[in-house]
Amino acid sequence: MTKNKIQAAIIIIGNEILSGRTQDTNTSTLATWLNSIGVKISEVRVIPDDEKTIVDTLNLLRKSNNYVFTTGGIGPTHDDITAQSVSKAFGLKYEIQNEAFKILESYYKPGEFNEGRQKMVWMPKNAELILNPTSGAPGFRVENVFCLPGVPSILKSMLGGLKNKIVGGEPILSDTISLRTVESEIAKSLSKIQEKNSDIEIGSYPFFHAGKLGVSIVIRSENQSKIENCKSQILKFVNEKKIEIVER
Amino acid sequence: MTKNKIQAAIIIIGNEILSGRTQDTNTSTLATWLNSIGVKISEVRVIPDDEKTIVDTLNLLRKSNNYVFTTGGIGPTHDDITAQSVSKAFGLKYEIQNEAFKILESYYKPGEFNEGRQKMVWMPKNAELILNPTSGAPGFRVENVFCLPGVPSILKSMLGGLKNKIVGGEPILSDTISLRTVESEIAKSLSKIQEKNSDIEIGSYPFFHAGKLGVSIVIRSENQSKIENCKSQILKFVNEKKIEIVER
Repeated sequence: MTKNKIQAAIIIIGNEILSGRTQDTNTSTLATWLNSIGVKISEVRVIPDDEKTIVDTLNLLRKSNNYVFTTGGIGPTHDDITAQSVSKAFGLKYEIQNEAFKILESYYKPGEFNEGRQKMVWMPKNAELILNPTSGAPGFRVENVFCLPGVPSILKSMLGGLKNKIVGGEPILSDTISLRTVESEIAKSLSKIQEKNSDIEIGSYPFFHAGKLGVSIVIRSENQSKIENCKSQILKFVNEKKIEIVER
Repeated sequence: MTKNKIQAAIIIIGNEILSGRTQDTNTSTLATWLNSIGVKISEVRVIPDDEKTIVDTLNLLRKSNNYVFTTGGIGPTHDDITAQSVSKAFGLKYEIQNEAFKILESYYKPGEFNEGRQKMVWMPKNAELILNPTSGAPGFRVENVFCLPGVPSILKSMLGGLKNKIVGGEPILSDTISLRTVESEIAKSLSKIQEKNSDIEIGSYPFFHAGKLGVSIVIRSENQSKIENCKSQILKFVNEKKIEIVER
């Protein structure tokens, strides 16, 4: 763990991502939101619906990160095994969470809170709920592990309720300069600037937009004045090379 | 490694995915293609542009998988460090690949094959090229590790040239039944069928389409007759419960 940095890992649980059937978008949603509150993502792992894999991955990543977020596997069907796997990872009893039971009992019409739905209130002992404003069934938290659903719209609607459970670091700021050039034209100059600014993350990303090639340079740091200083160094060589600036 | 299965891991290299700036689509492209040629994805890891992380991840996953695919980090800029990291992981010299040099020398106009572009021909010693029909700069292979670019359209265009380098297993077949129901209504019946068909992967995925909720049941196996047998068991309870079939 880098000093003074708050970092998190994301575990995407689901055979449907590994088979290619489903395009994961939860990584991007979580990463954007976490970066905005000063939590850097150390890594993302996409793993199958397999208990041993989930337990091992959780027990590794929860020790090397401030936070771990899982998505998927908390629904009512047989392939939803996240809650029981988290229980096993922490050595906790897998049992009915009373608060979740009450929420879902009143969410559904009388008689509709059937056996399938009741599976969704089984959680690790003393799990803290993460409320779900979209479809009732809550996510949960055990220590530094936050378990969220796989359906992107439901996951998004639950982030608001998470905010006060997470202590972030300095927000990670970024600035982008988009140029009408190709990477190889600026590689050497950019490399020199990266060497001089080793505590700043400078990324170079080619794009193709409206029939034209370009490169976006992204500068990332917790320190706004360092970003501005680095940006002016970049703009200096851009002007010298007479490269067209598309956006800055 | 599961017996008789050919499996691969995917390593997505790039800070831009971890920051949320870029939505990864290469996982889905590679996973769909690999499954179609009988290669199952064991896991996907998204990791930063950090040499030690790349080396360690590669050395772990190349031993536990038949194949490893990396995407990203093979361009001309300072943040493109995949080739040098692969060299280090295998303990190979990082040097000019002569064939790649010739390809790019003739690809660019005289005088345009500059220092930035020449970086793209530095590879691990004896790396085998993966040709790039879109933009010249090739990917490469060392033993069971295949290094591809991060730009999705370029990556896609290179898959055709990869096919004869990979020996797949039995193609993984799948069939989908889409129902007008919710997961909790079918969870118990589906669970019983999964228990009776333990060598088949049955997934259940809620969907929301044209204003209506539904569930897709996906059956996956290398054996078509097992899929059909499982499907008829599912259709039996679907008919008994009078659930509307949207697609089968």
